[in-house]
Amino acid sequence: MIVIMKPGAGVQQITDVMNRVRGDGYAPHLTEGEQQTIIGVVGESPTPLREDNYSSMDGVERVVRVSVPYKLASRHFNPADTLVPLNGSQMGGNKVLIIAGPCSVESREQIIEVAEQVKEAGATALRGGAFKPRTSPYSFQGFGEKGLQWLAEARERTGLPIVTEVMDTAQVPLVCQYADVLQIGARNMQNFSLLNAVGQTQHTILLKRGMSSTVEDLLMSAEYVLSNGNKRVMLCERGIRTFERATRNTFDVNAIPVLKALTHLPVLADPSHAVGLWEYVESIARAAVAAGADGLIVEVHSKPEEAVSDGRQSLKPDRFKAMVDQVKRVANAVGRTA
Amino acid sequence: MIVIMKPGAGVQQITDVMNRVRGDGYAPHLTEGEQQTIIGVVGESPTPLREDNYSSMDGVERVVRVSVPYKLASRHFNPADTLVPLNGSQMGGNKVLIIAGPCSVESREQIIEVAEQVKEAGATALRGGAFKPRTSPYSFQGFGEKGLQWLAEARERTGLPIVTEVMDTAQVPLVCQYADVLQIGARNMQNFSLLNAVGQTQHTILLKRGMSSTVEDLLMSAEYVLSNGNKRVMLCERGIRTFERATRNTFDVNAIPVLKALTHLPVLADPSHAVGLWEYVESIARAAVAAGADGLIVEVHSKPEEAVSDGRQSLKPDRFKAMVDQVKRVANAVGRTA
Amino acid sequence: MIVIMKPGAGVQQITDVMNRVRGDGYAPHLTEGEQQTIIGVVGESPTPLREDNYSSMDGVERVVRVSVPYKLASRHFNPADTLVPLNGSQMGGNKVLIIAGPCSVESREQIIEVAEQVKEAGATALRGGAFKPRTSPYSFQGFGEKGLQWLAEARERTGLPIVTEVMDTAQVPLVCQYADVLQIGARNMQNFSLLNAVGQTQHTILLKRGMSSTVEDLLMSAEYVLSNGNKRVMLCERGIRTFERATRNTFDVNAIPVLKALTHLPVLADPSHAVGLWEYVESIARAAVAAGADGLIVEVHSKPEEAVSDGRQSLKPDRFKAMVDQVKRVANAVGRTA
Amino acid sequence: MIVIMKPGAGVQQITDVMNRVRGDGYAPHLTEGEQQTIIGVVGESPTPLREDNYSSMDGVERVVRVSVPYKLASRHFNPADTLVPLNGSQMGGNKVLIIAGPCSVESREQIIEVAEQVKEAGATALRGGAFKPRTSPYSFQGFGEKGLQWLAEARERTGLPIVTEVMDTAQVPLVCQYADVLQIGARNMQNFSLLNAVGQTQHTILLKRGMSSTVEDLLMSAEYVLSNGNKRVMLCERGIRTFERATRNTFDVNAIPVLKALTHLPVLADPSHAVGLWEYVESIARAAVAAGADGLIVEVHSKPEEAVSDGRQSLKPDRFKAMVDQVKRVANAVGRTA
Repeated sequence: MIVIMKPGAGVQQITDVMNRVRGDGYAPHLTEGEQQTIIGVVGESPTPLREDNYSSMDGVERVVRVSVPYKLASRHFNPADTLVPLNGSQMGGNKVLIIAGPCSVESREQIIEVAEQVKEAGATALRGGAFKPRTSPYSFQGFGEKGLQWLAEARERTGLPIVTEVMDTAQVPLVCQYADVLQIGARNMQNFSLLNAVGQTQHTILLKRGMSSTVEDLLMSAEYVLSNGNKRVMLCERGIRTFERATRNTFDVNAIPVLKALTHLPVLADPSHAVGLWEYVESIARAAVAAGADGLIVEVHSKPEEAVSDGRQSLKPDRFKAMVDQVKRVANAVGRTA
Repeated sequence: MIVIMKPGAGVQQITDVMNRVRGDGYAPHLTEGEQQTIIGVVGESPTPLREDNYSSMDGVERVVRVSVPYKLASRHFNPADTLVPLNGSQMGGNKVLIIAGPCSVESREQIIEVAEQVKEAGATALRGGAFKPRTSPYSFQGFGEKGLQWLAEARERTGLPIVTEVMDTAQVPLVCQYADVLQIGARNMQNFSLLNAVGQTQHTILLKRGMSSTVEDLLMSAEYVLSNGNKRVMLCERGIRTFERATRNTFDVNAIPVLKALTHLPVLADPSHAVGLWEYVESIARAAVAAGADGLIVEVHSKPEEAVSDGRQSLKPDRFKAMVDQVKRVANAVGRTA
Repeated sequence: MIVIMKPGAGVQQITDVMNRVRGDGYAPHLTEGEQQTIIGVVGESPTPLREDNYSSMDGVERVVRVSVPYKLASRHFNPADTLVPLNGSQMGGNKVLIIAGPCSVESREQIIEVAEQVKEAGATALRGGAFKPRTSPYSFQGFGEKGLQWLAEARERTGLPIVTEVMDTAQVPLVCQYADVLQIGARNMQNFSLLNAVGQTQHTILLKRGMSSTVEDLLMSAEYVLSNGNKRVMLCERGIRTFERATRNTFDVNAIPVLKALTHLPVLADPSHAVGLWEYVESIARAAVAAGADGLIVEVHSKPEEAVSDGRQSLKPDRFKAMVDQVKRVANAVGRTA
Repeated sequence: MIVIMKPGAGVQQITDVMNRVRGDGYAPHLTEGEQQTIIGVVGESPTPLREDNYSSMDGVERVVRVSVPYKLASRHFNPADTLVPLNGSQMGGNKVLIIAGPCSVESREQIIEVAEQVKEAGATALRGGAFKPRTSPYSFQGFGEKGLQWLAEARERTGLPIVTEVMDTAQVPLVCQYADVLQIGARNMQNFSLLNAVGQTQHTILLKRGMSSTVEDLLMSAEYVLSNGNKRVMLCERGIRTFERATRNTFDVNAIPVLKALTHLPVLADPSHAVGLWEYVESIARAAVAAGADGLIVEVHSKPEEAVSDGRQSLKPDRFKAMVDQVKRVANAVGRTA
């Protein structure tokens, strides 16, 4: 940590900061510039450094953090890629894995049909929502446990593992009974109670980036799960909220290579939410893989114009199959398989 | 709802849309322009209109919603101001009410001391966090029930009702035992399970706007609480996330008059989080009241440089008192008291 | 400037940075932490420090600037408020000054009529556009010199000085013949050729913040004008572009006290563009003054429903008069006049 | 255009709107819903429809535009791809073309050396700035005409056409003497005087998206150039400004397929500015091409740690060569060459 004093900060103010550094068990290291003094904080101590405390002191202009605030998620501290097993493959390995399925589980027949279709097209796992976070209380909220049962039946038929969202700590035990992968949705990325709860399971977690969360926020939320003892965490970029209105979200493709550099965790992309319009999903899926994504999660629906949610961004099965073919070609171009 | 067809949409595509409108129990109303056809959807039906279904149909360019998606929160449907009782006054009435206290409850002595200080300065209620949503799992997470007990003791001493955050459905019964007002934090604004849970209590809810939520998103979250039967909802603008880095958040002061026009619910502002630097909190508090805010929620700490959280944005008690005096003057200028 | 080395940076990399610091004429000051080394750069030298050069060196993680990059605009280097004369008053002084008028000059009669109306209501200066930056090439582009002549005639009739936009270096001499204050619009805030050109005049400059410019960007653009020798610069917050769609822009009211702290230049607000809907303009004007704005610039039109531009955000003269009265009350509440 | 009346709008208000529609030479088409009335505006008339005028009328809630506001740039009106000749190839054709070179022209030797390097690596054209828009007036502002002369000499040596920025109308004749392609930088995307001026040349224009401009804003700026008679316009996505701080900008890769759908103009990407850190430029270049970009413009510098500008995002020549090889593989994967 570095404390930057204001221009004109007095000797007493500088001394107070240095004494506080010592009191916290660290060593202050003074650098006096022409205009401003800076104080480096070095050493180790059981007392954590609270930046806000220093920035609140008289004469302090601001505090600059030097090291990253996440350890378990950091590639610096854990250089080797984390590989998360999924249906006999490994997310984070050379093969780009594709999770696909409808936004919502709508019926037993629907989910079984689409499971067979996405398996046929090359998907590694099946997605489908039984508990649905909807902006409106008047929208369809999901079939709950019945939806989970239908998902399980689709798994039995196809062998595809199930990825499904859990919205609340109270749902965790139930969803764990059925699901292979617990999805934490964008709106819950900073639901810390939920992160703690899923961190105490050994289920694989698919953690989606919040729509206004920074890359660092995402890694801090991953750190919640990891620090509870669950190492099976996959991250997912799904678009952020910006001023642009031509698309549902703005896909932050930059985040993919940045995350691959900062963390050892697998990084997926959700091109469906990222752009929100089915006609562009294939382009964005290709871009994600070209940028280095380890996997994709894609919305597929047999009849998007009948879907209870997200029809506008859902691919029909044949278009999904075409997308998979394209993604394979791009994966090969960047030295991977798909 | 209005369906705008693509330029060049064919007769069959237009017919399909019209038939679907009829199938959903509404009447289609056709307007043929030079370039594009539009179809108005009128009438009432038990079948809700799903925009996504129409926008997914062939030949459709986009769908425009006409009416607002919230009814209970809407001033159009409920013109009279909702007045929420608080410590003998009413939030949403003529008097601007001020809630104040530390970010976190840190000790019995701390919370009692600050309760007395903010009461003395004119606060109507006491805020303080016992369950703390923190970006880092390594940061102080709050004293939990012990913190609630200390808050209750501060209430006994001062008579100030307690405003405190609830982070998870499982905490709702416990927090209800102690708190007068349940705060839903910005990061949980779209935690719909939690909104449903607090909607099933009769406690007053302080619903903070998410940092990337639109005004409409906020009203939809309020609608979750209202539609569960709890009418005591207060909204709070606390700053949104933008590109600007000089301040912690960007206070969307526009949202205050916009919300007052769109909804009958009381609208508060949180100048502490909105700007994030104590030296500007008074200016922003004044601006909020000048723009029409019904109340304020402000962070106050006896020793900000020792605070376990948010020290940088916390006012010392004497500065809080000065702020209250200034806010009263501005309230008077706009025809209110404080 | 502080250079933060990567964890694991080698001795040679650190030595290279230190040698470069010395080569640039500064002294390197080394602080070795447990994980990372930092190098403070102190002293003075004729060679400017280019952060990018250091951040491009091997082993460097990032570079932190310590001092602000603007000197002439900085309050630290120039503590006294700059007062800009306007119609016998001073922008930046105790009195809140109001500039008002239509978005575009539409006719001789129109501008004279509105000039008389805003003068009557208490305006200090008249705004009106003769050269109009319009998103569409098919929209009205302004009357050019004829518009300037009509503005001059309105000034003769009312005594109100004229504030009008200049869009291009080639227009500067012409606009200077007629205008009292040259407005640099939001879209031209980083048109550096234009900033240099108006910096070489002695006309007062009203510099509007770009819709995606930070406070620091705005001050750097002011520095362009100041460093050319023109000290008569007024800044204007007019709303920034965010994800919120309920209003045209998001008024960054935080920027007002922040700018007042960082710079000695007067700070105005444009509530019309900031919110974009006339029914909220008065609330935002009140908020701006409560937050500390030195002045306002407001769009007024006799018949907004006939305006060639910005009708939706223009106040009718009687509503403008009501706004002025309200603003006066708020100004008094914060110890100023209006 | 569709006018949506407020709930409760009166008969007179509806009549006034309909009369105004007729007065403007169009036909009003009424649809009365349960809550709200909407009025479609159909037909053709020499009088342009001004949305603001209608939205300013009593009883009107809002106005929805149906058709796009750009005609010349629209693919709907001009379905065939525009192909812009560049060095014997065509931007917008099957081959992905790469423009490369330093941010700034720094010396005769530097630009000739890098021109030879990028040609060797496969670049189609040479970029380099002689007039530099810099945030600070104290930063290097470019060598002006001398820089243009050096660029011309580099062209003679290598045969690579020159892409260079023009910042002001007054510079247009001079830059046209030397340059093959005139670049309009992000900060000047809405400098409408400059757009008009370059629209009156027959030079190819590379129009970069502003950092807070929507896709529609970009197309409207292209319309300025096109409507002046210059059809040789290439668009460039270079990253937008968002809340994310890990990268310089957020590359809006969504914009690439969206633009390809909306317009017939070629679409390039600038991965250097889009991410701002050289180590991620290759990933972003691959993503851009995978998403459908017709070309790339990339910053290359022999010694980034000595560059006068943008060193942090500049590729060294060998890394640029590696990037070109990767881009070719991705281009082939999506059915193109490079």
